[in-house]
Amino acid sequence: MARRTKKYWLRSLAAGYAAGMNWQPCFAQRTAQMRRSTVRELLKVTAQPDMISFGGGIPAPELFPVVEITEATAAVLRRSSEPALQYGETEGIAGLRDWVAARFSRPHCPVRRENVMIVTGSQQALDLIGKVFVDAGDRVLVENPTYLAMLSAWRPLQPAFVPLPSDADGADVCALPALLTPAAKLLYLVPNFQNPLGTTLNLPRRRRLLESLRASNTILVEDDPYGELRYAGEPLPSLLELDAVDDADGEFKTRVIHLGTFSKVLAPGLRVGWVIAPTAVIDKLVQAKQAADLHTSTFCQYVVLELLRNGVLERQLPRLRAEYGRRRDAMLSALTAHFPAEAKWTRPDGGLFLLVTLPSHVDAGELLKKALAQNVAFVPGDDFHLNGVGINTMRLNFSNASPEKIAAGVERLGRVLAAMM
Amino acid sequence: MARRTKKYWLRSLAAGYAAGMNWQPCFAQRTAQMRRSTVRELLKVTAQPDMISFGGGIPAPELFPVVEITEATAAVLRRSSEPALQYGETEGIAGLRDWVAARFSRPHCPVRRENVMIVTGSQQALDLIGKVFVDAGDRVLVENPTYLAMLSAWRPLQPAFVPLPSDADGADVCALPALLTPAAKLLYLVPNFQNPLGTTLNLPRRRRLLESLRASNTILVEDDPYGELRYAGEPLPSLLELDAVDDADGEFKTRVIHLGTFSKVLAPGLRVGWVIAPTAVIDKLVQAKQAADLHTSTFCQYVVLELLRNGVLERQLPRLRAEYGRRRDAMLSALTAHFPAEAKWTRPDGGLFLLVTLPSHVDAGELLKKALAQNVAFVPGDDFHLNGVGINTMRLNFSNASPEKIAAGVERLGRVLAAMM
Repeated sequence: MARRTKKYWLRSLAAGYAAGMNWQPCFAQRTAQMRRSTVRELLKVTAQPDMISFGGGIPAPELFPVVEITEATAAVLRRSSEPALQYGETEGIAGLRDWVAARFSRPHCPVRRENVMIVTGSQQALDLIGKVFVDAGDRVLVENPTYLAMLSAWRPLQPAFVPLPSDADGADVCALPALLTPAAKLLYLVPNFQNPLGTTLNLPRRRRLLESLRASNTILVEDDPYGELRYAGEPLPSLLELDAVDDADGEFKTRVIHLGTFSKVLAPGLRVGWVIAPTAVIDKLVQAKQAADLHTSTFCQYVVLELLRNGVLERQLPRLRAEYGRRRDAMLSALTAHFPAEAKWTRPDGGLFLLVTLPSHVDAGELLKKALAQNVAFVPGDDFHLNGVGINTMRLNFSNASPEKIAAGVERLGRVLAAMM
Repeated sequence: MARRTKKYWLRSLAAGYAAGMNWQPCFAQRTAQMRRSTVRELLKVTAQPDMISFGGGIPAPELFPVVEITEATAAVLRRSSEPALQYGETEGIAGLRDWVAARFSRPHCPVRRENVMIVTGSQQALDLIGKVFVDAGDRVLVENPTYLAMLSAWRPLQPAFVPLPSDADGADVCALPALLTPAAKLLYLVPNFQNPLGTTLNLPRRRRLLESLRASNTILVEDDPYGELRYAGEPLPSLLELDAVDDADGEFKTRVIHLGTFSKVLAPGLRVGWVIAPTAVIDKLVQAKQAADLHTSTFCQYVVLELLRNGVLERQLPRLRAEYGRRRDAMLSALTAHFPAEAKWTRPDGGLFLLVTLPSHVDAGELLKKALAQNVAFVPGDDFHLNGVGINTMRLNFSNASPEKIAAGVERLGRVLAAMM
């Protein structure tokens, strides 16, 4: 990187070779299971200013607490610059682990610092859980459709994904016992405002699901990025709190691994999430994380902790719920007004998404091409589905565009769709 | 996370179960190859204020450009808050990729934005390269000793590590051709101020190594976290620039994947590093990174880019070189003064480390126990070695303590050592 003499250039040039290289044979076998995410590639298109995007799970940037983040960052650099800029413990900074532990502790379930690991967004938790639990051939039970980036993280590990049917009340737990065979290593669920469906697992099903689980050796991964973003109905207890029990030795017992993130409620650019699990699991995940990225940015962790201590999350949540609730309503109204009677869609009580099911002859990928020409983006649902179904589904995000843009975008989509019917 | 009614608590409690759980049988087979890093565990001990630490590869926190980072962060939040706090492209932000590309471009080797991916510290690059290239049974050539956290990242993938001998001028390239068999997938090198040795691969060996490599299908991973931190001698061209050649189509050809990081020259807490490689390799790494953490903190990337644009790196490098050079000198003098004649050590021209080889009957792990009792920490060298050698070696870091503390710490170590001889 330093300046070189001309002699170096000539030497370097002479040393060069012109033969091309075919990299394909060099790649590991597992890379055959890797692909670029449609959603993330679409993000690039939707960054265009004229685009109305129902694409990514992208928070509304105009609601970011920029003033508070500016203050928090300045305070961190004034008071804690050395630890905030230095290498840190793989587990995460103590104050942030303690905050998560306090937030999730219940009288019967004392979550302690040792039960919490901070991760580089909850996507990293999925990657690490895959590494720590999934052997080739293991069965992994998932809703169908399910979260695309979980599939991307675990597919290279070559598990057998087993689809669990679901309806408006979440995963069909009656189908579960038969699927909880000894080879069923993991069950992955987004119980609140599922991605891409927007549906929520109701309380009776949560209880029944945990009963079935306890008769098995399967581990439940409860991924809850959206739980705080509820716009209707009452909050439900997490699967973690329903399952965990205090043990005499101060450790809590559960077969639930709980994932959360500050991405949807503070800012995704900070890349700070968490895992809550029994210490034996945290220990293994820490080993995997040491090798994956040493630790999550201490700078970002300190900023998040300062925001939490300043009460920013508690002030931010009502703002987000009010505005995203309005946007959800705007989308549901616009769908009713502009979509054909043959289309159906979910009615989420929270979160960022709903799923539209079009008549079976309509290919949502074709619709997307025509929609992009009209400056409207969404994500076709097929990649979220197993077994080749879902071609006629589309995931619509309602958090990123204003109610007015949502109305305009859905109207445009409805026109494009009408021309395809 | 919202407040719950008492009914919830009672329900939750009733649903609990008291049976313990043995997690060991649940873990994937690859976890048998995972362990907690000695270095990172030692970091926790060395955080104690009285400790003189020669342990981690930890920059001097008193040299962090805190004022500049405070200004840069404020500027980012004033001018670019939305993209800096939002989700971003997996590849990294364009400005930072362009900076890296410009920094590494040579007349014969036009590095473009498409050849650069930003990673969450270069540790993540190692994790992703492992995922993308290493199948079980692949041969991976490494110096012996070599960088511990590379071994941690790749061991769960079950390659066969093949040790390459090395001496004061770096890896023994004469031994290389016989080892570059078709099964030799990767060759991993830290050519500048190697960790843990502190040695540098000299220029004739760089040329000879690349000649051998070109007659093979092996890919070279050039990990260069310390290259900018040279305190003596002339900078050497990177293996990337010696190997790469421009192709007619504007793409450069090379079998070198080059890793770099801002951790040692700006601040490790930001967790921002980079990979430079042909686009076919970057494409695969991006797929792996999407599943690993979506992207590196956009906030940290914007802050780093602002620091670079403000010329902070160019001002920081001479400061670091001057101070770390003094610390290296202090350590070399103290070793000469206080260590027994039977001990030998490397004399690095840069970087953060040197390696001491003790008489063969001295176990550096035993020495560490006694040294910790005297409030001095270092890392025993055995974990960096393959094939069970290196028990009598110790890695000493000289960047983290002042010259005075270095002198005092080495004197204490010398006393403890004398008592063991």
